[in-house]
Amino acid sequence: MAGKISYIFLCMNVIPLLAAAASQACSAQSDAKCSQTGEWNGEFFPGIPKIKYEGPYTKNKFAYKWYNAEEVILGKKMKDWLRFSVAFWHTFRGTGVDPFGAPTKFWPWEDGTNSIAMAKRRMRANFEFINKLGVDRWCFHDRDIAPEGKTLQETNSNLDEVVKLAKTLQGNNIRPLWGTAQLFMHPRYMHGAATSSELGVYVYAAAQVKKAMEVTHYLGGENYVFWGGREGYQTLLNTDMEFELDHMAKFLEAAAAYKRKIGFTGTLLIEPKPQEPTKHQYDWDAATTTNFLRKYGLIGDFKLNIECNHATLSGHSCHHDVETARINGLLGNIDANSGDAQTGWDTDQFLTDTREATMIMLSVIKNGGLAPGGLNFDAKLRRESTDVEDLFIAHIVGMDTLARGLRYAAKLIEDGSLAKLIHKRYSSFYNELGALIEAGKADFEMLEKKAMEWGEATVASAKQELAEMIFNSVL
Amino acid sequence: MAGKISYIFLCMNVIPLLAAAASQACSAQSDAKCSQTGEWNGEFFPGIPKIKYEGPYTKNKFAYKWYNAEEVILGKKMKDWLRFSVAFWHTFRGTGVDPFGAPTKFWPWEDGTNSIAMAKRRMRANFEFINKLGVDRWCFHDRDIAPEGKTLQETNSNLDEVVKLAKTLQGNNIRPLWGTAQLFMHPRYMHGAATSSELGVYVYAAAQVKKAMEVTHYLGGENYVFWGGREGYQTLLNTDMEFELDHMAKFLEAAAAYKRKIGFTGTLLIEPKPQEPTKHQYDWDAATTTNFLRKYGLIGDFKLNIECNHATLSGHSCHHDVETARINGLLGNIDANSGDAQTGWDTDQFLTDTREATMIMLSVIKNGGLAPGGLNFDAKLRRESTDVEDLFIAHIVGMDTLARGLRYAAKLIEDGSLAKLIHKRYSSFYNELGALIEAGKADFEMLEKKAMEWGEATVASAKQELAEMIFNSVL
Amino acid sequence: MAGKISYIFLCMNVIPLLAAAASQACSAQSDAKCSQTGEWNGEFFPGIPKIKYEGPYTKNKFAYKWYNAEEVILGKKMKDWLRFSVAFWHTFRGTGVDPFGAPTKFWPWEDGTNSIAMAKRRMRANFEFINKLGVDRWCFHDRDIAPEGKTLQETNSNLDEVVKLAKTLQGNNIRPLWGTAQLFMHPRYMHGAATSSELGVYVYAAAQVKKAMEVTHYLGGENYVFWGGREGYQTLLNTDMEFELDHMAKFLEAAAAYKRKIGFTGTLLIEPKPQEPTKHQYDWDAATTTNFLRKYGLIGDFKLNIECNHATLSGHSCHHDVETARINGLLGNIDANSGDAQTGWDTDQFLTDTREATMIMLSVIKNGGLAPGGLNFDAKLRRESTDVEDLFIAHIVGMDTLARGLRYAAKLIEDGSLAKLIHKRYSSFYNELGALIEAGKADFEMLEKKAMEWGEATVASAKQELAEMIFNSVL
Amino acid sequence: MAGKISYIFLCMNVIPLLAAAASQACSAQSDAKCSQTGEWNGEFFPGIPKIKYEGPYTKNKFAYKWYNAEEVILGKKMKDWLRFSVAFWHTFRGTGVDPFGAPTKFWPWEDGTNSIAMAKRRMRANFEFINKLGVDRWCFHDRDIAPEGKTLQETNSNLDEVVKLAKTLQGNNIRPLWGTAQLFMHPRYMHGAATSSELGVYVYAAAQVKKAMEVTHYLGGENYVFWGGREGYQTLLNTDMEFELDHMAKFLEAAAAYKRKIGFTGTLLIEPKPQEPTKHQYDWDAATTTNFLRKYGLIGDFKLNIECNHATLSGHSCHHDVETARINGLLGNIDANSGDAQTGWDTDQFLTDTREATMIMLSVIKNGGLAPGGLNFDAKLRRESTDVEDLFIAHIVGMDTLARGLRYAAKLIEDGSLAKLIHKRYSSFYNELGALIEAGKADFEMLEKKAMEWGEATVASAKQELAEMIFNSVL
Repeated sequence: MAGKISYIFLCMNVIPLLAAAASQACSAQSDAKCSQTGEWNGEFFPGIPKIKYEGPYTKNKFAYKWYNAEEVILGKKMKDWLRFSVAFWHTFRGTGVDPFGAPTKFWPWEDGTNSIAMAKRRMRANFEFINKLGVDRWCFHDRDIAPEGKTLQETNSNLDEVVKLAKTLQGNNIRPLWGTAQLFMHPRYMHGAATSSELGVYVYAAAQVKKAMEVTHYLGGENYVFWGGREGYQTLLNTDMEFELDHMAKFLEAAAAYKRKIGFTGTLLIEPKPQEPTKHQYDWDAATTTNFLRKYGLIGDFKLNIECNHATLSGHSCHHDVETARINGLLGNIDANSGDAQTGWDTDQFLTDTREATMIMLSVIKNGGLAPGGLNFDAKLRRESTDVEDLFIAHIVGMDTLARGLRYAAKLIEDGSLAKLIHKRYSSFYNELGALIEAGKADFEMLEKKAMEWGEATVASAKQELAEMIFNSVL
Repeated sequence: MAGKISYIFLCMNVIPLLAAAASQACSAQSDAKCSQTGEWNGEFFPGIPKIKYEGPYTKNKFAYKWYNAEEVILGKKMKDWLRFSVAFWHTFRGTGVDPFGAPTKFWPWEDGTNSIAMAKRRMRANFEFINKLGVDRWCFHDRDIAPEGKTLQETNSNLDEVVKLAKTLQGNNIRPLWGTAQLFMHPRYMHGAATSSELGVYVYAAAQVKKAMEVTHYLGGENYVFWGGREGYQTLLNTDMEFELDHMAKFLEAAAAYKRKIGFTGTLLIEPKPQEPTKHQYDWDAATTTNFLRKYGLIGDFKLNIECNHATLSGHSCHHDVETARINGLLGNIDANSGDAQTGWDTDQFLTDTREATMIMLSVIKNGGLAPGGLNFDAKLRRESTDVEDLFIAHIVGMDTLARGLRYAAKLIEDGSLAKLIHKRYSSFYNELGALIEAGKADFEMLEKKAMEWGEATVASAKQELAEMIFNSVL
Repeated sequence: MAGKISYIFLCMNVIPLLAAAASQACSAQSDAKCSQTGEWNGEFFPGIPKIKYEGPYTKNKFAYKWYNAEEVILGKKMKDWLRFSVAFWHTFRGTGVDPFGAPTKFWPWEDGTNSIAMAKRRMRANFEFINKLGVDRWCFHDRDIAPEGKTLQETNSNLDEVVKLAKTLQGNNIRPLWGTAQLFMHPRYMHGAATSSELGVYVYAAAQVKKAMEVTHYLGGENYVFWGGREGYQTLLNTDMEFELDHMAKFLEAAAAYKRKIGFTGTLLIEPKPQEPTKHQYDWDAATTTNFLRKYGLIGDFKLNIECNHATLSGHSCHHDVETARINGLLGNIDANSGDAQTGWDTDQFLTDTREATMIMLSVIKNGGLAPGGLNFDAKLRRESTDVEDLFIAHIVGMDTLARGLRYAAKLIEDGSLAKLIHKRYSSFYNELGALIEAGKADFEMLEKKAMEWGEATVASAKQELAEMIFNSVL
Repeated sequence: MAGKISYIFLCMNVIPLLAAAASQACSAQSDAKCSQTGEWNGEFFPGIPKIKYEGPYTKNKFAYKWYNAEEVILGKKMKDWLRFSVAFWHTFRGTGVDPFGAPTKFWPWEDGTNSIAMAKRRMRANFEFINKLGVDRWCFHDRDIAPEGKTLQETNSNLDEVVKLAKTLQGNNIRPLWGTAQLFMHPRYMHGAATSSELGVYVYAAAQVKKAMEVTHYLGGENYVFWGGREGYQTLLNTDMEFELDHMAKFLEAAAAYKRKIGFTGTLLIEPKPQEPTKHQYDWDAATTTNFLRKYGLIGDFKLNIECNHATLSGHSCHHDVETARINGLLGNIDANSGDAQTGWDTDQFLTDTREATMIMLSVIKNGGLAPGGLNFDAKLRRESTDVEDLFIAHIVGMDTLARGLRYAAKLIEDGSLAKLIHKRYSSFYNELGALIEAGKADFEMLEKKAMEWGEATVASAKQELAEMIFNSVL
């Protein structure tokens, strides 16, 4: 029996627990559920009903209090504003591992293997979960839905087999919001993928992205995401930043070309994150990534996937980075999660703060919605939440929070007081000189003449507290 | 008698102290020194000699231990690599005020007024200081060298009068590294200057920048700086970020046009800072500012002035932001100061860390120097440092630290081990396929074929600890 | 005419503005309002009515939506749970100054002087404000209610004169929640007060605190606060931390002795803050301050005043520091404000986040209320909020937020689900062995025997997401 | 074959790599080295010599440039000031795993199992490493030196077997600086150990600590450490903080009692850390932990182990927390590592900054050394450093940095200028009144009288820049 035991003993010491969990699960249920063929008779989530809207006063933890998919808000159905997506990795491959701790989740359908049979069983669980939630979209990394093989060929073939099943299980209503290639877990990517110091890794990464794009296309995915968790540096002492950024640009250029070649019409999205695992990541935040896209002429081909917890790690509010993407014409998707305001790492919590949700949904409404992007729950159960039902509770509270944000944002817009306040703030520009300035026709000499003529400027109160009062009044 | 008393009672309560200080200063010295004409007979810094290089073993606090202006390092004189500049505002207008405290500095040459006579006397002190340090450059904000008048006309005339004196005092050897307009102190700028919600303020700011550029040009300034301390927002609830950024672009466009019109050939520089005083500043960091310049087509007209403490406040090392500017072709100037690693605001300390200085000088050398930019001491005495001699000690330690950084960086380059380590790291790309990738000619199909052929990639150690050992060996 | 002009030109350059503002105010209103005698005929806040409760659906910005003073919640009137207090300094001495900017507030009742007449007029404005808000308490620093004189004797006499008026204006219903001495603004305190390196400053500070305690006692103050903004260090290189802490202890010991001597029965409170203005402040957070009190045997004499923005600056949630004080038996008062989640300095904003308010009020309820402490609005208008009405709007939204927090906390307690969840979590201890452990009678040998006997432990889910769902359901 | 595959697929996907690495290692060397008996013929680190001191000018990467064990500094040998210790876990169980990445280290002596044979082989490697470095101490967690068994009994027996070997390999010169129990990795500890919500876990943890203390005692360990990585909370919503802290105190009380019972005379040390993995850890920093010890009467039994990276994560400099421990009489040991100034998590880097090292060594000297504590390298190779020699290089640079710090600190002390500056700063207290204050005999009335008599206080410059100049002059 083999298995790497690290200080962070993430394997062998847990195997007895896993074996115990799996066997217990099997004996507790029917043997057939644990069969080697990957079949699992009956439900994965017995006792958990299809989640329905019951309104804010229900005490039922398996009901939506605010999310009512078909209800129309500002002329569009809630489901079309929100376009929720389940993240396969957190929900089905999250184990509760952290830098100081072993896995804590031992789901009954897991048999302790990384076999294809297990991958398929897990995929069935995924779709039962999605269907019970009443969501239409999911997101995935290539390597978390199918096991890596001994060669790239074998790995690709494993992926094909699982993807084929996923295609069937998707049916007519479900499709990937986006797919992506996992270019950060395997040790080969320790120095980066597109920005690795090793040619062999650049080449390997290209092959992996090629396949992941094909697979996403095959599944009807609406977008394809690049998260460069290893594209960055640990120290500038051993790094040629310019060389690496040039490579990253060439890699993305080739990706866009391949997208066009295979007729994939989904949006290519870059997901900024400032750091973690890398000390500095090149896609630091929305503005930094936009600068990169502009520098290398990639603006037409890429948009951004803003993740809230990444935005806060980079020193911005989530709302700020969403707005930055929006006004650069690049708001493609939102990874709707939340960080802990006092921690310096990615906690990927489900968003439960209705204030923040309202701010985000204000931007989404201004953007006319996110389609073909959506709101992906790149969020995980807390390590200590170990009941199967916690998976549902977490998604329900996350969906309800954003639904509540949508309702409040709509209320704010319908009320109109805040818009009026902003309009009034800038009203001194609504005249001829304002128009000249905005047209680039007001030179310094013209302006100086005006300044001499006008003397001291009048400056009105910014009314921040009143704006906050209005905002609070809709919550 | 008048004077605004704030909770932060920054005026009247201190006046008795100031009056006492000034009168004491006068009686302690000659009466003529305090004359109403702004004349100050004799030295401002009696007892402090011209600072000379005495080498690392001297115990003389008024000597350079590492900075030897005429010594040649890597083919260039130290003074030409370093191009030091004294910041007028911190050195001559810094009072020790902080958000919870009144002024603590009562320099003997100050008479407690903001008169033109006082402005001139202060200017004489500035040049005595610069001459004693043996530095060739200085930086200024318009409003800290001359008092604001009742009208813009009067203010401009005040400025002209003081600038005329400065021109004389500069002589042949001294000139401004850069000038700038102070667009953040006056209440009219509370919502921003170019991004103010008030047309009157935009207009006024344009007139102020126009004049400041003229004055900088007149004095032979080598650069002109924009620091947008109020260009940003306090809350997105009352802000139209896109509207404001468009205005900022138009303003800078007009500034560049005016520069060309008057034949000013200095570089226009934007100085990024993430926040403080504003909650979010639009020129957040080097990458964000570069994105702005690219978006609005301003790249050709502007470069960046990287301030170390601003870089660290934005979550980067100073070295990172300097390198980011450099590889975007925008490294124009460095405001060489340092922050406190544990505080979340700008402390503007003199840089005393030789490691950081060495990293910065490595970038400067890679950039072929900074000219026409330089290293400006945008740094201030600690509030509790209240002796006149502290002004000298602080500059000497700051200059010596950077001189030491230059010497160490040169040693590192001459040693060559670190460069070799980096060259080796990327060596797998030094071949035909590497060249194809860099030429944008390696498409995903070609790369996948290679990946299938090559199998698993070999990945070498990044040797960070060895790089650190080499780095430490030159310190 | 005199006035110190700093780089941060906080005096003279603003005087023309102030003069203009004051004269304009006078001409706009009645001349008599600006009389030299400090009398102000008529209202300070004309047009602003006494603020009343109108319920959540009102659109009236001058009405409470959630705060209904006499309404009974969990057996106590809202006003007795909340015990609101207006902070004189932010409300009446806040000028909008920031480290990069001059004053922005030019209230009509200010005449640009720091005279006693002005101090009295301001005090009248304070009580009109308090009465219109319907609040019963206020807080003050000695130096912001009366001007510093040429000598300590004169300063004390100034203070007496203003305090006498305040006593009259208080009437029967209003009293100070607390008073304090301002030991941070004056340059003499630049190295600290009780921890200054100068004996003369220690002595002066003792005299100042003595007087401030007397005055607080005279006004019927319920508490007395120590905030040690300068008690700390800027660098350990020049500091003897142990020496300074010993002095701080002796100072507080003497303060407690004097309190007893004069029969003042109010609580002495220390207000922790991690830093700003000082790089490191000795009263870093609740735990650090508690350690100090324990080390020096001061626990019986002092409690803590937890300020939310200070808690967040020290890396904790406000709720955490309130709870830390509570379980150490030291929760004395709360300075109910809020910081900006993305800034590294004290923004002292009014609390508008109902989630945070609910968490805080949960602790207050657990504590059985805060009396004789309360909730002091140590919060200021944003610098850009310059209308007189903004003072009211800010307080109303702050009060409503905490009132809402109280209502939600009560709802959570009445619902009981969250308490049940917590009770269940710890239920494995509700037995004999649990009791032995808690009694300190379970030694390692006994426990090892049990461990061998029991084998692997069962560990239940922590149900964080369910807890969040329950929490959200009451908001 | 089994193995849990997580999203963070830390097991099976890496096994092929590990197997490949191990087999390659075996074929590359002699087969006998990989024998099942755990024997490894010949050296683990062939080609790496015993590291010797060669002075600062050597280019040999396997030599000390500053650490000269027997050289006497300030009357004590360098090895006695520094008392270096190798951390078994980072050096021999560190795999390069991070929250987003699989292991990257495949040391040749690892065979991919967690067997006792492997544990023994690894222990041999450890002692060869220690001997080659010329260090006398090592530190360990129970679970990283021996595999967990199916029962606690079996686990203990595994531990005994490996410990017996370690005892032999230690010889006469080597001993543990400290041992500890790993109470954070196993899922049973997810809610804490002493503060777990589960009685069974409290019990199990007690049994584990009991054994770890016995084993440390048996090996001649000089200290025993408690690091409470899971003693804290993820959210206050589901936590009874007071209940948990009471339990922690009882647990530590029982540990101290057991220590006395078995005659173990080593120091018990608590290692503060603010957070990570837990959102809030109860042993937040030195001051917080000291408060806990005082509250529960545990001061006599425990001291502190200050880890630099933990100090910086809590918002302090390392030097600050070392000094805080020292002046509370609790400086027991230092975990000498370093964090990245820009990351919000524990990077556990080797300390390479000589400035910081000098500050730390100044405190160590003031403390009269650390014995029976020492300087433990709780530091790990960067994930991307994958050569066996990197283990040596990292330790050499870490040891040299602290040795350099010691040399510089001694130079600073011998020079005396800095001490003189500090002495002068506080000299106003060196008189009768100062003595009265320090004796607690100066009451407020006496002090007020003095204040009235003396008038305004004189306040000298703090001379921070001069202090920095002096400090830099010894580097």
